[in-house]
Formats: sequence, C-alpha cells, structure tokens
Amino acid sequence: MKITTLTSDISLKRQLEQGNEQQLQTVREVIADVRAKGDAAIKYYSEKWDGFAPENLRVTKQEITDAVNNFDSQLYMDLQEAADNIRLYHNEQKRNGFQLPLADGSYLAQRITALDAVGLYVPGGSATYPSSVLMNVIPAQVAGVKRIVITSPAGKDGKLPEAVLVAGHILGVTEIYKAGGAQAIAALAYGTETIAPVDKITGPGNIYVALAKREVFGEVAIDMIAGPSEICVLADDTAYADEIAADLLSQAEHDTLACAVLITTSDDLADEVAEQVEIQLSRLPREAIARKAIENFGQIYVAESIEEAVRAVNSLAPEHLEVVTENAEQVSQMVTHAGAIFIGRYSSEPVGDYFAGTNHVLPTNSTARFASGLNVDDFIKRTSVVYYSQKTWQQNASKIARLARLEGLEGHARAVESRGWDKGDEA
Amino acid sequence: MKITTLTSDISLKRQLEQGNEQQLQTVREVIADVRAKGDAAIKYYSEKWDGFAPENLRVTKQEITDAVNNFDSQLYMDLQEAADNIRLYHNEQKRNGFQLPLADGSYLAQRITALDAVGLYVPGGSATYPSSVLMNVIPAQVAGVKRIVITSPAGKDGKLPEAVLVAGHILGVTEIYKAGGAQAIAALAYGTETIAPVDKITGPGNIYVALAKREVFGEVAIDMIAGPSEICVLADDTAYADEIAADLLSQAEHDTLACAVLITTSDDLADEVAEQVEIQLSRLPREAIARKAIENFGQIYVAESIEEAVRAVNSLAPEHLEVVTENAEQVSQMVTHAGAIFIGRYSSEPVGDYFAGTNHVLPTNSTARFASGLNVDDFIKRTSVVYYSQKTWQQNASKIARLARLEGLEGHARAVESRGWDKGDEA
Repeated sequence: MKITTLTSDISLKRQLEQGNEQQLQTVREVIADVRAKGDAAIKYYSEKWDGFAPENLRVTKQEITDAVNNFDSQLYMDLQEAADNIRLYHNEQKRNGFQLPLADGSYLAQRITALDAVGLYVPGGSATYPSSVLMNVIPAQVAGVKRIVITSPAGKDGKLPEAVLVAGHILGVTEIYKAGGAQAIAALAYGTETIAPVDKITGPGNIYVALAKREVFGEVAIDMIAGPSEICVLADDTAYADEIAADLLSQAEHDTLACAVLITTSDDLADEVAEQVEIQLSRLPREAIARKAIENFGQIYVAESIEEAVRAVNSLAPEHLEVVTENAEQVSQMVTHAGAIFIGRYSSEPVGDYFAGTNHVLPTNSTARFASGLNVDDFIKRTSVVYYSQKTWQQNASKIARLARLEGLEGHARAVESRGWDKGDEA
Repeated sequence: MKITTLTSDISLKRQLEQGNEQQLQTVREVIADVRAKGDAAIKYYSEKWDGFAPENLRVTKQEITDAVNNFDSQLYMDLQEAADNIRLYHNEQKRNGFQLPLADGSYLAQRITALDAVGLYVPGGSATYPSSVLMNVIPAQVAGVKRIVITSPAGKDGKLPEAVLVAGHILGVTEIYKAGGAQAIAALAYGTETIAPVDKITGPGNIYVALAKREVFGEVAIDMIAGPSEICVLADDTAYADEIAADLLSQAEHDTLACAVLITTSDDLADEVAEQVEIQLSRLPREAIARKAIENFGQIYVAESIEEAVRAVNSLAPEHLEVVTENAEQVSQMVTHAGAIFIGRYSSEPVGDYFAGTNHVLPTNSTARFASGLNVDDFIKRTSVVYYSQKTWQQNASKIARLARLEGLEGHARAVESRGWDKGDEA
C-alpha cells in the first residue's frame, strides 16, 4: 500500500456505476413488460437471464422445510444468535409518537405508523447472503411492518440458496419469490397476479436492479443505492499491524472498487501494515479482487497528531471506521461523520457485518455526511395531528388569516375565518 | 363538484411534471457552468432569467435591517408566534442516541449528530413565502445544524422579498443569497467562491429547480420533490357545508393540479358542499386556479359508513386530512395513511399551514403510504458504535468466522480470528 504524509482533507469519492443508456432502455422495457404481462414477463426474463423459468414463482413450504433440514445445525444456531443480537439493537431504535397539550384542550401530536408492506431484494449469483436477509428484515419487523416479502433469482437448478431460505425461516418470513433483476423490482413496485405490490423496496443488487429501483422510486420508496464497501482505520502505535492489515483486507475482498484506508500517527505502524497487507494478500482466496482494490483505493496516511487524523476521518465520512488507539472511546467521540464506528482492538469490522447487532447496510461514498445506516425509522412514517378547540381557534384565527393574506392566499384566510362565531356550536 | 357513490378504493395519483429532455439539458449545462465558473455563472444566469445580476450575491446586514424596519409590526409578531409554535412542536421530535450494554463491558450504541450545513431554496416570482422559511429552517435548527443558508432569486429590482428576509431574521439566519433556479442548486451542491457547499438542500421550486435537485442528489441530500397540494375531508352530517367548502378551496387555490376531495356519509352534506363550493368559488381572488383544480381533481364521494369512508382515506393516503365527524378523534385513530390530520371543526387545514406548529412540508401523491412530513430527523444522521471487549470477542469470534465463511468471505473470517490470543494484551 502507498504511504503518504497527511497534508489536507482527503476523499474516498469514486465515480459510481451509473449504467449506460442501453441498460436503462432494457430496464424500462422490462418494467413495462411486467406491468403489461405480469407473471408471464417475470418467467420470460428469468429464463432469458437466469436460465430457469420457475413454474411457481412462490417458494413452497416444502422447499423451506427441506432447506432447514439440510442446513448445518451449528450455522443455524449462529444465524439465530445473530438475529437475536440484531433484534436487540434495533428494538432500541423503536419509538413512540407524542402528544403535546396546548391551552384550552387543544393539542398537537405525532403518530407513528409502520409501512404496510416491504420487499427485500436478495441478489443471486455465486455467493449467498443470509446476513442481508437479517439486516433488512429485522428493522422492518421491529417497526411493525406486517407483510415482508423476499425475492431473489433462482439458480439454473430452480432453487434459491438454502441459507437465504433458512434466514427467512428463522425470522418467520414465508412469502419468498423466485424472481430476480429488474423484473423482480417491477413486480414489487406494481404487482403481478402472484406478487402483490409493496410500499418500499430495499436490498442490494447489480446495475439492472439499481437502475430499476431508481425507475420505480416515487411509485414506492427505496433504500439508498449502496456503493462499494469502505473501511478507514484510525490507529496509533498501540495497534498491531497484522490485525489492522487483516481488517483492511476484509473490506478490500468485497469489490475491486472497495476502499481501504489507514490513518496513523505511527510511521512504524504504517510500514508494518504495508508489509502485512502484502503478506496476507498473497494468501487470500479472493486475492485478485482485494489486490485490485488495494492498488486503486488503498492508502496509508501518516498524520502529525490524533486531532489531525480525526479531521481527515471527518472529511472522508467513511462507511466503516475502526479506532484502534489509546483512549479509543474518547477519540471516537471527536468523529462526527461515519456510518459505523468500531472501537478498540477486539471490535474488528466483520463483527458488525454479521453478529454484533448493528446494521451492516451503511452509507458509502462520503454520504455519511448526511445519511444513516438502515434503521427502524426507514420502515415507519409520521403523521402530524392538529386539534384546535373553539377557544384556541378564536384566539388565533385573525393571526392565521393575516399570515395567509401576506402570502396572497385569500382562500386560506377565508377558510380559517369561516368557522361560525354565531352558529352556537362547540366542537 | 361531481358527486358519486363510493364503491371502491380511490386514488389521488396524478402524473407529475417530469420535465422534458430540453429542460434537463439546460439544467445540466447550468450545473456544469456553475461548477466551472462559480459566481460568474450564477450572475450570468440571474441576468438572463431573473432580469437582474446582483453585484454581491450575499444579502447585506443593511438589507436585512431595512426589511425588518419596513415590515408591519403586527405581522412581525404573527411570524414570531408561528415560529415559537413550530419550534415547540419540533422540539418534541428531537431525540438522543442510546448505549446498550452487553456482557463483559462490551456495548453497542447509536450516536445522533446533526448535518453540518443545509441550504433552503425559497422560490421567487410574484408570491412570497415566509412560512416556507419557518417550516424548513426550524427543524434544521432544532436538529442542531450549525450552518443554515437561504437562497432565493432577486426580483428585477435586485431585492429579495421583505417577508423572507424578516422570517430569516426572526430565526437568526443571516447567510442569505440572491440566487435562484438551477444555478442556485448547483452552488449549494458544489460551492462557488462566495457560497460554500452544503450537505442537504430543501425547499420547493419550479421544474428547473426540481430537475437540478434530482441531478445533484447523491452529491448532497435533498428533500422530497413535492407535488401539488391535496386535501381530503372526511365528514358526517354534523359538519357545516360552508366550512368544508372553504377548506376544500383553500387547497384548490394553490395550483390547477391541486386535489380536493370530500368523503361523507351524508347525502345532504354532499349536495350542500357542492353548492357552497360554487358560491365561494365565484368570490375567490384566485378563482381561475381553484376552479380548474376543482374541475379536474375535485370530487365528492358518498360512503355507506364511516368505516367505508376511512378505508377510502387510507387508499388515498392524502397529504392533508380533515376529520369533521362525531367522535372525530376516535375516527382519526383508524387512519393509517395521511401526511397530516386535522381533527374537528376548528382545526381548519390552514391552521397547520402557518401557525399551529406542525410542519407544512408533507408527502403528496399517495406517498404518505411510506413517507413523512419534514421533521427533525431529516437533519440528523445516526452512527452505530460497536465496542467488543476481549472476552466478548473470545466468546463470539468462531461464530462470526463461520458466518463469514458461509458467505465465502474468508478475509472477513481471518480478520476476526487475527486478534492475538497469545499477545497477552487486553484492550
């Protein structure tokens, strides 16, 4: 890894894949087809792109039972424990509405209601991501969403990955469809004979999925369009180089566009980490991917002081930040922009990817300046409530009418004034 | 207004203005120009489209003082009282992070931090909207945003509307620029010599502003793209027709695409409201706009029962809902989808537009199914925190490594396992 002296603000920003005109055209055609032809369009495109046209889009109870029975029992317990941890953390995010009493019996309120239905897209391909199921479904369940749907492309064998079905089973999600790509997103947004539409779509996917989500945005809500993973480690001379190198590589192995940055106050650590990254890279199964990421977006910065290092962290606004320094807790308190912070030597970043309980869907590409990781609030909405008594109305009607007229909205003023002083009613 | 019997779910959805290719091209050129030429580009386009090129983009202290001194003192007090009410309500939305202790000294936490800087766009043109300033700025202030910027196109006289400067003054916002259109949005997103960039842009605007916000989305956060106003009144035979008609027209006067719907269990009320709408329309200054809205998107539905009426309300998911019935509070509790609810005869909708304290930036076009009005959470972000002690790590490392390997991510497993059992350290 390159080592440079930290001299100014630094940036992780990468030009993200926007898709080309051809891809967008394809996505629009697929969406139009699904709207016009429903299930038949999903099957057509599944056969065309995934090599399998499922007769029944919905996964059967038997398929789920088979997956659970085949699944390693130790891994089942691990997933179960991870789910419990994630639920524990997200329960803390839940909150109630409020009622604010005003004078004379009037009040203002905020009511919190859950979305009716949400859909989680789980990508197909060679890998399988049960952790995505846990991270997307649990916040929705904690929010109180009643209908939660999972959709994922079937493999050429017509099956969904066992681990995905098992994760769904552990959470009690049984509405699972064999549909992938833009056709799945269109089905979730507009509905088909088999798949009723949802109000929000979350989950990662390839460029076609991302483009389709952007196309249906407004019709339904979507989560963020996630960029490649990022890790920033802030470390001093108390850190161990082999551990820091391993953590940097854990994110680099995700994607050739992933980003791994060390900011340290120790020249020695900088050198040792660079060396360790080389050693560990050569032994990594996903060496090719990780090496490319490190070459393109790996960097070690040497800072004058912890304060200077923290300033750089805040300019990066990284998705993941590890603080491995003396007084790591206090140092972390100076950080204002980061998706997730891991404090101390034993809080290796993958702890949060799978198990600790925090969410692994986090803002990338410096958007931690203004965005948050997936959380319970992503699955609720707020309704404001106004109750004015006659007396409160009497006291304020003329003020409200004046403000309306200041904006040239006479109809607003008349509406407020229309309440009959002389109708002799009290509501 | 047309009167029909309610028979099934109803919809308010309208095809919203998406802008055409020509407009999008213009917006992209303007953004590129502002990025390349900064202030000079803003002045160029201001002269071209607003008929005035300000020498200094920033409004001076003297201009603000002059506006305050010229302003009607009664209206000043009205705005001040409205601001106090809005602050009172939004203070209730504020919340703290949390820390969740685990075993062995470990913990998970959620930290809440405010955005650093936000920009509010205030449209120009004939009307002036001080209420927009209050509704957008106060939630940001309550969230703790330190830098709040207002930008608005100057008139041909080189001035911003007095009421906007006064509203800013009341809230203590002094960073105000004379810049409008796509050039203002580009300046807020990318910065110029004079205008430092912000992290989030809120506020309404014309199609060029909306397209520009969509273009810079991702670089910065934006609020929703608001559609035309909507009101739905749910009323029984206890309601007064003249009052309901006035409230329907208060939203119809906003826009020819505005939507005004009455759902009632009373045939008599339906007839009387239709008659009252006609009478009141003919006396309204903005009759032409309101009449067009009523013709296109005005509708009275007669329902069999309150339950049937509420079902229709939930299928509409209206921006504004008035409940003017017996037991209005209880009836309102059955509503799951609405941006804001106004309960009872004296809670005329404009009460919330200006004064009560709730926010008037609300989800339109059925998006209340999944979206909320502008609130304090729109100006904060959450950072999750993981602290694992050595013991917690020891207990869970093998589980986490197994889950990582299940997903084929060996680098993740090795990172967690890398912590030295034998280095004899405790962090």
